[in-house]
Amino acid sequence: MNELDCYLDDKRNLVNQALKTCLPQKGPTAVREAMRYSLEAGGKRLRPILTLAVADTLNYKDNSVMDVACALELIHTYSLIHDDLPAMDNSDLRRGKPTCHKVFGEANAVLAGDALLTLAFEVLGRYGLNCGSAKKAMQITCEMAKAAGVTGMIGGQVLDLESEGKNISSSELETMSRMKTGALLKASVDCGAVAADATEAQKEILGEYAADIGTAFQIVDDLLDYESSEEELGKPVGSDRERFKPNYPSVLGPEKARQQAQMLYEQAINKVNELNCSPGLLVGLAEKMVNRKK
Amino acid sequence: MNELDCYLDDKRNLVNQALKTCLPQKGPTAVREAMRYSLEAGGKRLRPILTLAVADTLNYKDNSVMDVACALELIHTYSLIHDDLPAMDNSDLRRGKPTCHKVFGEANAVLAGDALLTLAFEVLGRYGLNCGSAKKAMQITCEMAKAAGVTGMIGGQVLDLESEGKNISSSELETMSRMKTGALLKASVDCGAVAADATEAQKEILGEYAADIGTAFQIVDDLLDYESSEEELGKPVGSDRERFKPNYPSVLGPEKARQQAQMLYEQAINKVNELNCSPGLLVGLAEKMVNRKK
Repeated sequence: MNELDCYLDDKRNLVNQALKTCLPQKGPTAVREAMRYSLEAGGKRLRPILTLAVADTLNYKDNSVMDVACALELIHTYSLIHDDLPAMDNSDLRRGKPTCHKVFGEANAVLAGDALLTLAFEVLGRYGLNCGSAKKAMQITCEMAKAAGVTGMIGGQVLDLESEGKNISSSELETMSRMKTGALLKASVDCGAVAADATEAQKEILGEYAADIGTAFQIVDDLLDYESSEEELGKPVGSDRERFKPNYPSVLGPEKARQQAQMLYEQAINKVNELNCSPGLLVGLAEKMVNRKK
Repeated sequence: MNELDCYLDDKRNLVNQALKTCLPQKGPTAVREAMRYSLEAGGKRLRPILTLAVADTLNYKDNSVMDVACALELIHTYSLIHDDLPAMDNSDLRRGKPTCHKVFGEANAVLAGDALLTLAFEVLGRYGLNCGSAKKAMQITCEMAKAAGVTGMIGGQVLDLESEGKNISSSELETMSRMKTGALLKASVDCGAVAADATEAQKEILGEYAADIGTAFQIVDDLLDYESSEEELGKPVGSDRERFKPNYPSVLGPEKARQQAQMLYEQAINKVNELNCSPGLLVGLAEKMVNRKK
């Protein structure tokens, strides 16, 4: 295993341990089981790892940044549960397992999603009381809520649902992808930067890096949906096509989509090389995100 | 109009104005319309008014407490939208109008609820950056998230759904009601107290007051469902009975339920009279909550 893979493995384990401690110990079993099921369904933990990698890149050592990382994964997991609901994407499979509502019923799935979203902000509240700078925590709360809200992730999901069966332009597609996936990925980097006391100049560089890899990540996601086998992907493939959902390969063509992902990746790398500290980790992560197979 | 009614009217107008400014100006129209529809469907604004009344009782003059009040109403409204969903209570009518999913479709209703919940924490984040004490804001964030989460409102909704068609004991009913309705009402008072720089002694008194009026409020709610006409209530009556949902009149009998509400009301009044400042407003509010007709 190379150095980066060791790092990712290590961080993923730490995130998984920390997430376990976030889950509530009390309250009705049904909804807590549903929360745990989806949270422990084996995600890549990309968002929290991005946050931790930014802190490590900036040589910030305080462990409290893990709270910020966990809040992002809680929000990401809630969004997957709600996106999979029958009224939304109506998905039966996620990460190779039956979706939350298939196992726990629709009511518990809605409530488990609500609870994970709420928990994210409880975790941030606790972070604010423990991290030594409540002001920093409030900035992060604001940033994360905005990224998850109507001008970010939720807005993107609305556009995604509305795009079914329609022809949309490449710029509409870009807006949708920036909101639906990009906003929370960017927040993962931006909140890591705030938590790790980045300078304004560093924040700007990291923000541009994050925007580029966020879009590149979505393009690759679309390409995998377009090309992979179900076994490789852990969820039904071609589901966009089946639902007549426009995505990068369908709007730009697969070849041009791949080129654009590559271009954004290179742009992100160039950007992050401007940092006044060693960017190897963030370069490696970007490379992983663009060259992944699932 | 008596003095209390004038106060309530005045605060309700201020809350309504403030809520309008909370709503996002950007993002897809469908979800923003759904958010506005439910937020402006004519609620009593009980939770934000409780928060403001606590601040007024403690003679706290800073306007920033309105942000805290708005966050509570945003959370309350989201919970109504999700509770009404077909997978939950499957309600067609709320406050005399078709429910959110009836007008905007189920997907937009789920997302509008998610967005209102998320917005509540964005508003709290902004409050923290503006109120002069980010630490206070983090305490409020923690408190509100806990009240809205699995050990509070969401947990209560799970128990409520699970209780359908079952016989439950009066102590189980009390737990359910304390979580489902009581927790956010109590948070409205508790967060008002934190925002208004209450002393520890004041917080304790206000907390006990809030717990009592919270339960009394739920008992009255159940009695209204049991006794009122649809026209008076603005939603279908007897809906608990129709769904075989246990509630205070069905578990205790209507007479004993009424007595218990009265007892809790008197206990709350006695408590709040221990405050070292004039409690007239909170006494009046408690009286309103117990003697309301809808």
